[in-house]
Amino acid sequence: MTQLNVSIIGLGLIGGSLGLALGTADPKEAPLGRANIIGYDLDPRVTRAAKARLVIDVAVDSIADAARMGDIIIIATPVLAVREVMAQIAPHVRHGALVTDTASTKAQIVRWARELLPTTVSFVGGHPMAGAEQAGVEAANLDLFRGSVYCLCFDPHTRAEAVDTAFALAETVGAKPYAIDPAEHDTYVAGISHLPFLLSVALTELASRSPGWVEMRPLASSGFRDTSRLASGDPTMHRDICLSNTAALTHWLDEAGAVLAELRQAIAAQDGPALERVFAHAQQKRDEWLRSSPNVRPGEGTPLPKEDLQPLSLRSILLGRRRRRR
Amino acid sequence: MTQLNVSIIGLGLIGGSLGLALGTADPKEAPLGRANIIGYDLDPRVTRAAKARLVIDVAVDSIADAARMGDIIIIATPVLAVREVMAQIAPHVRHGALVTDTASTKAQIVRWARELLPTTVSFVGGHPMAGAEQAGVEAANLDLFRGSVYCLCFDPHTRAEAVDTAFALAETVGAKPYAIDPAEHDTYVAGISHLPFLLSVALTELASRSPGWVEMRPLASSGFRDTSRLASGDPTMHRDICLSNTAALTHWLDEAGAVLAELRQAIAAQDGPALERVFAHAQQKRDEWLRSSPNVRPGEGTPLPKEDLQPLSLRSILLGRRRRRR
Repeated sequence: MTQLNVSIIGLGLIGGSLGLALGTADPKEAPLGRANIIGYDLDPRVTRAAKARLVIDVAVDSIADAARMGDIIIIATPVLAVREVMAQIAPHVRHGALVTDTASTKAQIVRWARELLPTTVSFVGGHPMAGAEQAGVEAANLDLFRGSVYCLCFDPHTRAEAVDTAFALAETVGAKPYAIDPAEHDTYVAGISHLPFLLSVALTELASRSPGWVEMRPLASSGFRDTSRLASGDPTMHRDICLSNTAALTHWLDEAGAVLAELRQAIAAQDGPALERVFAHAQQKRDEWLRSSPNVRPGEGTPLPKEDLQPLSLRSILLGRRRRRR
Repeated sequence: MTQLNVSIIGLGLIGGSLGLALGTADPKEAPLGRANIIGYDLDPRVTRAAKARLVIDVAVDSIADAARMGDIIIIATPVLAVREVMAQIAPHVRHGALVTDTASTKAQIVRWARELLPTTVSFVGGHPMAGAEQAGVEAANLDLFRGSVYCLCFDPHTRAEAVDTAFALAETVGAKPYAIDPAEHDTYVAGISHLPFLLSVALTELASRSPGWVEMRPLASSGFRDTSRLASGDPTMHRDICLSNTAALTHWLDEAGAVLAELRQAIAAQDGPALERVFAHAQQKRDEWLRSSPNVRPGEGTPLPKEDLQPLSLRSILLGRRRRRR
């Protein structure tokens, strides 16, 4: 197996962590082998720092070089920069290359790829479901993706080899690939990832805007710490997420408002049984979620009907299973 | 120094952890010495389990015995049970005993103490700002309170020795005593402790009520885990908190609703600068909070005006400082 060249464009927390994980993988065990990592960042100091920290093997100072050199090109910039990067790499990408990204929203990204990338390359949208409050290549972490879900968005026309390569990439960084429709992805992720950020911001804002904040601050303990944790996340990245996933986010904000209004009503009416019922339901549902492995797909672990046991490509199995679920 | 008898009524997570910490304190170092722990729980199996786990030294099977034996009586039951416990212990408490509690709301508790406890004892309301999702004596943890803030509510008529004993108790379990007015306590704690619980419940509810939950569940990651953590808390305890701190909670729910409406408006209007501004403010405020020690009182660490340097009792210093702040 020849060593693959992986070009990473954007060397922040995610790009840097992918570089570390792919570039240090066990060549014998990893589905992708140990890749040769080519790194590019808009800020040349970041590219140099990534090289110095051995996050990448080769530093390049032009996005065209990164595009030319990669068998796989990973766009790991903020969401709204992906479009411009696609336009810039389009004239330079190798025939047969796999282009993927790491952005937190997918429908818009997939549309941009269709619009901008040449038909000689394959695009598979990617979203590794892992993160940290810290940003930047300094926070890059070899194990960031270990055990997490790695969403992959492709369609029936995507070449099977490209899909297999994207699966291998996700598995090589220790994640579990999860094929999902881009629109479904955006709706679901808005609910379980982006809305929690907004709730965390709302908590931090209402507390810190209060005239009593200076006296509340020393009382705030582990409950406040955990519920507000996401508010320490990167403001620009989250701005882009909100701007690129508007409909799903306003939907979930309305749902949040409805539940909070229900709770307010029960509290104002001193309705103990109603409060206890909701609290017990939430406790049960969260505990169920905690007990379920994050790596089990719905339906996994239960026997599949006969026709699924035919030898099929991984892609057609996953796409097929997804279609049946609808 | 003779060994003090500490009676703990209610042997859940908090009562059990206090028993462990007070009963294993270093007799030479701890301000309260190593106490002899008398334990009582409404459920005799819990009392027996606490004895078997060495959480308490002496198990008693009547609340009257617990009241009679304690130099200090700690009521560590759910909020709404405190009133009944006070009524039951009132005829039996020792002359000069300190009665305290651990409930998450304080104004109502202080009123009940005035109404129900004899004037021969002192009451100091207590709220150790620590917890865990796990409940019950099985989860009791020697170090639960280490480094956390321990709110204490008393008034100018409270005997100085009782206040000093309450401070010593908090310090013995490794916490930092924090004198606070009961009404202020309830307002502040509703914002930084009880509201986060409601936001956590709202998130868990809106996600788990959604038809897409079965497919969202495997995508939920560390952000969902932390923001929803408090929803795994005890439903009964939180019901009681909501019922005993209604005004403060509805106030903070309205504040939360206002910030969420502001965010929704900015998202719907695709107002990137407004979103980034709020997100950056929240990030800055949370990071400031993280950097500030939870054990520093407002004003602490800055030089006090001259008159504060007179020799005064701890109590009058703290009460005086609090009055000035108003």
